[in-house]
Amino acid sequence: MKRITIEDIAAKLNISFSTVARALNDHPAISDATKKAVRETATRLGYRQNKVAASLRSGRTHIIGVIVPNLQLSFFSSVVHGIERVMNENEYNILLYQSNEQADHEARGIDTFLQSRVDGIIASITQETREMPHFAEIRKRGIPLLFFDRAINGLEVPAVVIDDFKGGYMATKHLIDQGYKRIVHINTHQDLAIFTDRLEGYKAALRDHHLPIDEQYIVRGALSLEFGDATAQSFLDQGLAFDAVFAVEDYTAMGVLQALKRNKIKVPKEVGVIGFANEAFGSLVTPALSSIDQQTVRMGEEAAALFLKVLQQKGKPAGTPERIVLEPLLVARDSTAR
Amino acid sequence: MKRITIEDIAAKLNISFSTVARALNDHPAISDATKKAVRETATRLGYRQNKVAASLRSGRTHIIGVIVPNLQLSFFSSVVHGIERVMNENEYNILLYQSNEQADHEARGIDTFLQSRVDGIIASITQETREMPHFAEIRKRGIPLLFFDRAINGLEVPAVVIDDFKGGYMATKHLIDQGYKRIVHINTHQDLAIFTDRLEGYKAALRDHHLPIDEQYIVRGALSLEFGDATAQSFLDQGLAFDAVFAVEDYTAMGVLQALKRNKIKVPKEVGVIGFANEAFGSLVTPALSSIDQQTVRMGEEAAALFLKVLQQKGKPAGTPERIVLEPLLVARDSTAR
Repeated sequence: MKRITIEDIAAKLNISFSTVARALNDHPAISDATKKAVRETATRLGYRQNKVAASLRSGRTHIIGVIVPNLQLSFFSSVVHGIERVMNENEYNILLYQSNEQADHEARGIDTFLQSRVDGIIASITQETREMPHFAEIRKRGIPLLFFDRAINGLEVPAVVIDDFKGGYMATKHLIDQGYKRIVHINTHQDLAIFTDRLEGYKAALRDHHLPIDEQYIVRGALSLEFGDATAQSFLDQGLAFDAVFAVEDYTAMGVLQALKRNKIKVPKEVGVIGFANEAFGSLVTPALSSIDQQTVRMGEEAAALFLKVLQQKGKPAGTPERIVLEPLLVARDSTAR
Repeated sequence: MKRITIEDIAAKLNISFSTVARALNDHPAISDATKKAVRETATRLGYRQNKVAASLRSGRTHIIGVIVPNLQLSFFSSVVHGIERVMNENEYNILLYQSNEQADHEARGIDTFLQSRVDGIIASITQETREMPHFAEIRKRGIPLLFFDRAINGLEVPAVVIDDFKGGYMATKHLIDQGYKRIVHINTHQDLAIFTDRLEGYKAALRDHHLPIDEQYIVRGALSLEFGDATAQSFLDQGLAFDAVFAVEDYTAMGVLQALKRNKIKVPKEVGVIGFANEAFGSLVTPALSSIDQQTVRMGEEAAALFLKVLQQKGKPAGTPERIVLEPLLVARDSTAR
């Protein structure tokens, strides 16, 4: 008799793998009605949770390595909390490694995880990562790998990302809807999909609203509070008219806010400012910073649930790796409330 | 012939072990003059760096596990950056584990590190940690252990901490010096030395300045933005007069700021607010939040340097474990600038 899996229950109820996994683990995010349906279906199909738990535990160490650029960004620490919650519920332990945005450091972290005999690696790559020999090594060894947020294009690996094009579009459209017309966009020289996609979203929104795309208003540099501040100051010094700024991440937007404040320019009345990532400080500053939320905890939970599925399928012939794309959410606060 | 060690060079020059270690590694924090003196002394004494490097590397994995309550607090993520920098320079790799302030989770993290055969563990305990069997297990196995910031009293383990009594005293004295007289103190029910020491510092500063200690003005609860907000609101609702608040950590202080702002009470004119830990958001909010800085990166670097010493001495009869106490620093910003 074929062994019943979480996937069979998911298919029967037409709900996701992660919903079933969390329902079986009595996760607070799942409604009682769903839990009841999952439990009844599990009983009816003859699903035995212990068996699956045992198969999930068939790895050598029950340790999953998570490698991230920088845990000082609340984006990453928040995703990690989501991953930890789901993996811990499924009897895996999470070890973390910070690459500090350096590709050689990232490679060292992967070596460290391989040496610790982790059962799998979940990663978000550095801004520098172009080559992929250390990631190829993971796959050569047959160790499950999953990317979240920042993935290497061209490497066939399951991933959980957000729709950054849509996020960039949303931020820009929000500014236009609020009546702003000359929108500066601050981005980076780094050729990372998450950033170029946001830029494309910015351009598409301008185009759709019949506003000109002016390359002079697209500024690139080392994303940071200092760079946001310097960019806004430079526009003011040059007398380049602008009435809004969309920065590709929140710290840069914060720098813009500080420069405007120093120059006694009223936000949001004279200039609107929106960032991206919904960093924790954004709701605490004055005016509170509008941003695009990336559903961080959910991203972590989805990444973990998808990874559990990958671990379960380990050794089976792989099809096209699954890719989950989450929706960005607009968080409109005072800095754009014209 | 006795082998020359870093300690011999340190003793000869009357400087610290960590200064010598960092000078030999060409650390940017060390002056060129010191580096020159260290190198000359090393040559004169016949010190051979490779030998020591090899002895440092004699562990099995070159992996050090760092266990912290929560990396979403910039205090911890900043200390970890300091630890990583020094340990990486000395060819160790750092793996991180978050206990999320839960003692059972902390025990699980220690198991995970032991299973990964780390060469040593650096830890800051949870607010819940009272029992110490899992820490005792580390020592029983002869694995080097070091605490930073939050240590278990009564367990003879090297530690790097700050003088929390002095920090609490400093924060309170600063408020008094600025002319504030009725100072609310927000603390926690948790019986953790770092928090009780800050409370004692608060009381001592009041005593030294002939201000009454009123138990009604010492409030305890679950430290958080919400609790700070609720505490300030409750004082206002009850009509309890106060002109300053010293919160034992910054998020709670931020909640106080938000409640005061909502009630149109002017900060710092009517009420002064100071926190503790110098979290990253403090300089970004308006008014900028005064706080006590804990020299986080230095704490991490000192912890790493002391730990390298412990790793080197492994197996030798242990004397009294070394304890480094760092000075807290007052960071006076707008929220207390009366």
